[in-house]
Amino acid sequence: MTTIYNFSAGPAVLPKEVLQQAAAEMLDWHGSGMSVMEMSHRGAEFMSIMDAAQRDLRDLLAIPENYKILFLQGGGLGENAIVPMNLMGRRPDAPVDFIHTGSWSGKSIKEAQKYATVNVAASAASNGFTAVPARESWQLSKDAAYVHLCTNETIDGVEYHFVPDVAEQTGGAPIVADMSSHILSRVIDVSAYGVIFGGAQKNIGPAGLTLVIVREDLLGHALPVCPSAFDWKIVADNGSMYNTPPTYAIYIAGLVFQWLKRQGGVAAMEAQNIAKATLLYDYLDSTDFYENRVAKECRSRMNVPFFLKDESLNAEFLTAAKAQGLLQLKGHKSVGGMRASIYNAMPLAGVQALVGFMHEFASAHS
Amino acid sequence: MTTIYNFSAGPAVLPKEVLQQAAAEMLDWHGSGMSVMEMSHRGAEFMSIMDAAQRDLRDLLAIPENYKILFLQGGGLGENAIVPMNLMGRRPDAPVDFIHTGSWSGKSIKEAQKYATVNVAASAASNGFTAVPARESWQLSKDAAYVHLCTNETIDGVEYHFVPDVAEQTGGAPIVADMSSHILSRVIDVSAYGVIFGGAQKNIGPAGLTLVIVREDLLGHALPVCPSAFDWKIVADNGSMYNTPPTYAIYIAGLVFQWLKRQGGVAAMEAQNIAKATLLYDYLDSTDFYENRVAKECRSRMNVPFFLKDESLNAEFLTAAKAQGLLQLKGHKSVGGMRASIYNAMPLAGVQALVGFMHEFASAHS
Repeated sequence: MTTIYNFSAGPAVLPKEVLQQAAAEMLDWHGSGMSVMEMSHRGAEFMSIMDAAQRDLRDLLAIPENYKILFLQGGGLGENAIVPMNLMGRRPDAPVDFIHTGSWSGKSIKEAQKYATVNVAASAASNGFTAVPARESWQLSKDAAYVHLCTNETIDGVEYHFVPDVAEQTGGAPIVADMSSHILSRVIDVSAYGVIFGGAQKNIGPAGLTLVIVREDLLGHALPVCPSAFDWKIVADNGSMYNTPPTYAIYIAGLVFQWLKRQGGVAAMEAQNIAKATLLYDYLDSTDFYENRVAKECRSRMNVPFFLKDESLNAEFLTAAKAQGLLQLKGHKSVGGMRASIYNAMPLAGVQALVGFMHEFASAHS
Repeated sequence: MTTIYNFSAGPAVLPKEVLQQAAAEMLDWHGSGMSVMEMSHRGAEFMSIMDAAQRDLRDLLAIPENYKILFLQGGGLGENAIVPMNLMGRRPDAPVDFIHTGSWSGKSIKEAQKYATVNVAASAASNGFTAVPARESWQLSKDAAYVHLCTNETIDGVEYHFVPDVAEQTGGAPIVADMSSHILSRVIDVSAYGVIFGGAQKNIGPAGLTLVIVREDLLGHALPVCPSAFDWKIVADNGSMYNTPPTYAIYIAGLVFQWLKRQGGVAAMEAQNIAKATLLYDYLDSTDFYENRVAKECRSRMNVPFFLKDESLNAEFLTAAKAQGLLQLKGHKSVGGMRASIYNAMPLAGVQALVGFMHEFASAHS
């Protein structure tokens, strides 16, 4: 049977070991006689799963003690509303600064306008969202409530490879970072951010779980219209159990965290991710048959959009790729072309197989 | 090995066949080479799972064509805010009528006050939430925006065994029913309701999925502060894929729907549920050792709270039950005592085992 490599942008490939363990434990978790799906979230069994998941994540990202880890629901799009609902009670009249780098930050801007005055401090629209605007060009507000970044644009394939210093110009505004599609793929300094959030369905686990990492002083400032179930303070005070959490998704995320630790942690994953991305970008840059349009210093290690120069071959490319077990390579409809998402769980062998296929396909059609 | 029966109030027991199928398909769904967790929600494979789940649910509950089925996130507690956020744009100044029958309707009342003027039209507080207030006693508003019921109080064990007529007194207000803990346990006339909602973690599937069934004319009236990801109109227009849905939870729910059809559908489940509840309540009524305090005509078929007359035996009861494989019988802390939740997936044999144990325990301690 052909080895399958799944390049979906999310929900996305998960480590095979994790799926094998989940299958083995499906009917009876650790002799409890229950599936994890059947456990009361307040029972000792699930509490141990929850605690381990939080502890492992704190280890993996070296999350300081003054940050809370929250497990929520509603995904990145939900957080686009939930973030301003939680933060704007702190300084209701202050503007929120956004850096517009692609589809996801664009959606965040639109939603935040329902709850706050938005200032687009910089936009990459003029270059077709192929680069992060240079830090010097950002027109930050001197009294910003917070500065919102999407540190990896899943659709546009643009990633921040720096942490911008915004405190001085904004009077100490915290950075809110949507890290949905690259969290756990690289070492980060959590203390540089006020809030980090992300949908789980890329590097963490199944869709339906949302991660929020928030500095404690930013809790307790929700707008009165914020639903209790999404009020970070209430969620934090209840250990992410104010409402029934997505227990099975948390269990799978916990298995992924254990797997990451077995791989050597986030630093080891980052080295592997650099190797994978370098292999693919180097090939793209070596040929005239394909192209990636993102500025080199802003290219995403996770999401690699690329185009066939002759787009009339797109359908044939996708069919031939699928026949070789290379799945879900079609680009997002807003960008077109192809996209290979190469998250943590994608092995180097998968990228090698992709590059091998691309080379063959190019040779056959040149 | 002892057969395990799990009486958790939710997350709760799931059909063994469903778990077996999920385990078998975990690494490779129908030859796709992917786990369901790894599939793009917009790909053909997951779309077929989503479509089948919706179709089967529509069949099972005979949901009329002018009702939309929405798969959301955030649970019942989330909906407590999301319901008024979606409906109050229709008639912003109208009061919302609530019938207060226990813990869950109490939480709904508190949350709705953030978005609307609330009228508690009837309350069972004076009887300790052991009965649904008689319909004649309800003080409905003649211009209510909607009437909210919790048709099965999970914690208090009180269930509506009638559909109240509210239209005439309220000028046609729709009924919003929180059916979290008894949906799919009995035949219902969906057309009697404007909105039906429920967390999945009792009779539907894993925690993290929320079901909303809404009459089409009630869509499109969201308050401006309603997050887009929870705006029913946006969710409906996008086939529950405005944001990435909890795909694996929907897959499991779909397997549960197929299992329900194999059991003969909701009418057959209802007959089975009546048999299970009758067995347990008849035993409780036959002994002085235990008691259930809910009015007979309002007793829940799903959640059966009961007390040992001698509460000093509680810990011993729970330990002895666990030793016989009868799990999670401890009552909710707000009520005390015991609670047996006997959802669809609890077989008659489980209730027989429970009654047998209770009888033995009573004999040994009388």
